[in-house]
Amino acid sequence: MLSRKELFKDTLKKAAHAWKRTVELHLTEEEANLLRLYIDQPGYVDLHWVMFVPAIKGQGTEEQQKKWLTMAYKFQIIGTYAQTELGHGSNVQGLETTATFDPSTDEFIMHSPTLTSSKWWPGGLGKTSTHAVVYARLITEGKDYGIHGFIMQLRSLDDHSPLPGITIGDIGGKFGSGAYNSMDNGVMRLDHVRIPRDQMLMRLAQVTREGKYVHSDVPKQLLYGTMVYVRQTIVADASRALSRAVCIAVRYGAIRKQFGSKAGGPETQVLNYKTQQSRLFPFLASAYAFRFVGQWLKWLYTDVTQKLESKDFSTLPEAHACTAGLKSVTTSATADAIEECQKLCGGHGYLNSSGLPELFAVNLPACTYEGDNVVLLLQVARFLMKTVSQVASGKQPVGTTAYMGNIQHLMQCKSVVNTVEDWLNPAAIKEVFEARALRMAVNCAQNISKAPSQEEGFEAAVAHVQLIIVTKFIEKLQEDILGHGVKEQLQKLCGIYALHLIHKHLGDFLSTGCVTARQGSLANERLGKLYAQVRPNAVALVDAFDYTDHYLGSALGRYDGDVYSALYKEAWKDPLNETVVPDGYQEHLRPLLKQQLKLSRL
Amino acid sequence: MLSRKELFKDTLKKAAHAWKRTVELHLTEEEANLLRLYIDQPGYVDLHWVMFVPAIKGQGTEEQQKKWLTMAYKFQIIGTYAQTELGHGSNVQGLETTATFDPSTDEFIMHSPTLTSSKWWPGGLGKTSTHAVVYARLITEGKDYGIHGFIMQLRSLDDHSPLPGITIGDIGGKFGSGAYNSMDNGVMRLDHVRIPRDQMLMRLAQVTREGKYVHSDVPKQLLYGTMVYVRQTIVADASRALSRAVCIAVRYGAIRKQFGSKAGGPETQVLNYKTQQSRLFPFLASAYAFRFVGQWLKWLYTDVTQKLESKDFSTLPEAHACTAGLKSVTTSATADAIEECQKLCGGHGYLNSSGLPELFAVNLPACTYEGDNVVLLLQVARFLMKTVSQVASGKQPVGTTAYMGNIQHLMQCKSVVNTVEDWLNPAAIKEVFEARALRMAVNCAQNISKAPSQEEGFEAAVAHVQLIIVTKFIEKLQEDILGHGVKEQLQKLCGIYALHLIHKHLGDFLSTGCVTARQGSLANERLGKLYAQVRPNAVALVDAFDYTDHYLGSALGRYDGDVYSALYKEAWKDPLNETVVPDGYQEHLRPLLKQQLKLSRL
Repeated sequence: MLSRKELFKDTLKKAAHAWKRTVELHLTEEEANLLRLYIDQPGYVDLHWVMFVPAIKGQGTEEQQKKWLTMAYKFQIIGTYAQTELGHGSNVQGLETTATFDPSTDEFIMHSPTLTSSKWWPGGLGKTSTHAVVYARLITEGKDYGIHGFIMQLRSLDDHSPLPGITIGDIGGKFGSGAYNSMDNGVMRLDHVRIPRDQMLMRLAQVTREGKYVHSDVPKQLLYGTMVYVRQTIVADASRALSRAVCIAVRYGAIRKQFGSKAGGPETQVLNYKTQQSRLFPFLASAYAFRFVGQWLKWLYTDVTQKLESKDFSTLPEAHACTAGLKSVTTSATADAIEECQKLCGGHGYLNSSGLPELFAVNLPACTYEGDNVVLLLQVARFLMKTVSQVASGKQPVGTTAYMGNIQHLMQCKSVVNTVEDWLNPAAIKEVFEARALRMAVNCAQNISKAPSQEEGFEAAVAHVQLIIVTKFIEKLQEDILGHGVKEQLQKLCGIYALHLIHKHLGDFLSTGCVTARQGSLANERLGKLYAQVRPNAVALVDAFDYTDHYLGSALGRYDGDVYSALYKEAWKDPLNETVVPDGYQEHLRPLLKQQLKLSRL
Repeated sequence: MLSRKELFKDTLKKAAHAWKRTVELHLTEEEANLLRLYIDQPGYVDLHWVMFVPAIKGQGTEEQQKKWLTMAYKFQIIGTYAQTELGHGSNVQGLETTATFDPSTDEFIMHSPTLTSSKWWPGGLGKTSTHAVVYARLITEGKDYGIHGFIMQLRSLDDHSPLPGITIGDIGGKFGSGAYNSMDNGVMRLDHVRIPRDQMLMRLAQVTREGKYVHSDVPKQLLYGTMVYVRQTIVADASRALSRAVCIAVRYGAIRKQFGSKAGGPETQVLNYKTQQSRLFPFLASAYAFRFVGQWLKWLYTDVTQKLESKDFSTLPEAHACTAGLKSVTTSATADAIEECQKLCGGHGYLNSSGLPELFAVNLPACTYEGDNVVLLLQVARFLMKTVSQVASGKQPVGTTAYMGNIQHLMQCKSVVNTVEDWLNPAAIKEVFEARALRMAVNCAQNISKAPSQEEGFEAAVAHVQLIIVTKFIEKLQEDILGHGVKEQLQKLCGIYALHLIHKHLGDFLSTGCVTARQGSLANERLGKLYAQVRPNAVALVDAFDYTDHYLGSALGRYDGDVYSALYKEAWKDPLNETVVPDGYQEHLRPLLKQQLKLSRL
């Protein structure tokens, strides 16, 4: 219920306090990350640690890293990542900001030549950051060498005022009542601002004292490591957000009662309704599915890093496509699911005290930042088309595309499912998902000249990514899992995750001949049985996420189920309830009721 | 950017001003409605006119109408509609508030026996309304006669303080930064509050001076008229909201450029991308489709009213199911589409200055209020099951279910579509939609004992409602339509609306055998061609909605296309930009940067 300014100040306060505790308690990097996670509010520190520091690590020379990271690690400077511009988002090559080398002073002149070149969106830029990695077109000896990163100081370290030539501000209110309004996403215009030559990030390319542009022998592919890392954290964030929403909706579904078997009789827990289950339990299954695929992505990142260190770039395109696809599919599904959970909680889901509006507003932008989800899936589609053509010419696909090597079988196989129970078999499920993904990719490759092929590519990419998630869930269940009966419950969720996708995308499965209408109907029947089986453990399956009431922040999702007293108590905290008769009564209500609105003479 | 209290006060001010102008200009009811529409902010007056007044009109005796409506029409009293309770939403029969008749004083004792019986959500209740129609269980002579409406005065007309025994307040912040936070949705507890017997709404049933409960001879069905009316206005609201979002996204899509055919070359308007078209143009088509079905619903309401007046209730169940279904399908599709439009505008869609966050937050709740969309579609499903069984026993279905009479043909027909062009034929489109809807309803009726049948019913209801919308669009195009080439454009949109549904629900069409995989693929090809044909007129088709820049309230949707200057200008209005150095710097930023956070000794 804070105003924008109060909210922002509050974020500054929390960040300072968290840093104080980080220092006092000598927290490790991992512990400090967890602390930020539980503060659970977007703020400048996110950009500093997740974008500014990694950018310098990835693109700075050893000398640059030593100089700048030493200050950044101590928070002597606060950094952000200034890439996007008012007129330019996803297409980095379209950025307009220029960095022109002036050999007479050994400086770069940083400049915003147009309104649309204003830096726009960087978090922490608006009011907080003292420094930034600014992306700009490098111009030297009259030639444009394209986009490079530069370290710029933005504000005085004495009084925080912007340095000469820099106009800087906040870009204004954003979606949601809290959410990203705690973050000072910023706008910045540069008017011929000079920085020393050594503030160009020079690991991959340098400009010499004379103004010569020289490539270093460091391979460009190294930069992809950071991208895999950042997207991996976004998948983990999505899985966490989804599990919070599901936790709230499942718990409230067990408390909330509506209608009953007889008029006047006791009402039924809404969680017992099939329609509620068929909406909510796929989200529960997705929350687990995304968590497992997120854990696997963490492994993938380590694997990629090791291979990069030994200059093995062979699996990089596959790893890159896989993380891009998973980022897209999990964040889109999460945003949709949170919104649906809000609806599944009935009217009360729209109250801020339910915790759901804030969760939704914080997580929806993940569909757009760090790669627009549609653009990312189109990249995945292009990668799949390439892989299809390589398979055709005999090259063995790797990693998550390995199944494509099985093309002979997958293009022709017919699912052996013949009874409802056959859909319990993970191999049968995996086969239809592999066949669907491959056939869609192949169809798309064949239609590539026709008009709707871009959309087909998008859908083929979704099919491929869903296969990855299903596969990783199945693989997880081949490991040992602690706890009596836990694996059995997870197997049901895995079944729900896969079968609900077959139901949702039945058109894909039928039109590619991977599944018959009868098999689709059996899958549906199996799904109904799984819902009934999961119902008794649904609350336990969300309790297992182990979120505190404080972290959930939801009157509806309380562990003790005392939701109505909690809603009632929360209501009275609203500023409108400070007085019984509202501010404005004397001016605007009383004259109306007393028929004393002063009518003008027309 | 207003705080909750400022926002609310602002709403009071606007409402008073609008009323002043309404009186001064002697506006008709319809003109006054339009004025409220263009104020475009939820407020207490909505409840007064759309719920309180119609409730008294529908359920009050002539005498009651004369007394209360006279005051309501002059705003000498402000009324709301207090039905839902903290623990009870959709199921009216589950309400707990009691109205116990006391023959010794000729009064009803209105009481909230439990916490969950607190009235909760009524708009305008929290701070504004002086009166309400309160729904409560009528108890007389020791017997519970179920839910009835009662007129209660809530606040003093002298000083606006709540009357004795009434505890009343606002229920707190809601989804969105503005949106319904301008409305004082309220909570109310009643502690044995006495009202005269004649404040029970007595058109349908009375309690006599002695406490006898007596039905009048007025048929209960008359009440359905109001429901049809309210839901019809919601469909109109949804179509308007959708067209605003589409207008913003289409116009910005024509301005925004991204990537290009060659690296370094000029960037392409995003509206030219197939993926953008395949997402956005179905919404454009839906905006027109919902508008036409909304116009038809207006006619239906008149028709229902006339039939009710002549006590012909034969078409009422069909009209009721039809409006319930349309309310559900159009509001769900609209909320999803606004959210998607926000994403289609890239990052800038999340800025409040894009207008989309507010539009989304205002329209999402329509999925839940006035009948939860899932609950409504399950009602439609039950009606369809009943109709199927009546058709089986030879009864002729009416209105929007008339197609079901053609059961012999529709259960067996095969679509004659054989080329891409065949999908231009409205009769071919209508047939596959009719066949799909009927077959899904029949399948569902046959499976009614099986577990997933509730979900199947839901999907059958969606298919039925989509058929209605497609049919009304096709019928509209059989009328004369003014303007050169306008009908041709609308025909393309009608094709897009229908074919995108075939694509989206391909699983339905394939598994019921209404369409073959090849026909589905032809439909897709046709769709791609239609997108390309609509592209040159897309901007004109949203300009045709004729919204002013003021009403759209969107920097991205400006008529003149000067979006980047507008975004830039809007940014600087944020309160955070009042100072260059933000509030909180001295306390929370400077000590951090200067390494002077006071560390406690642990």
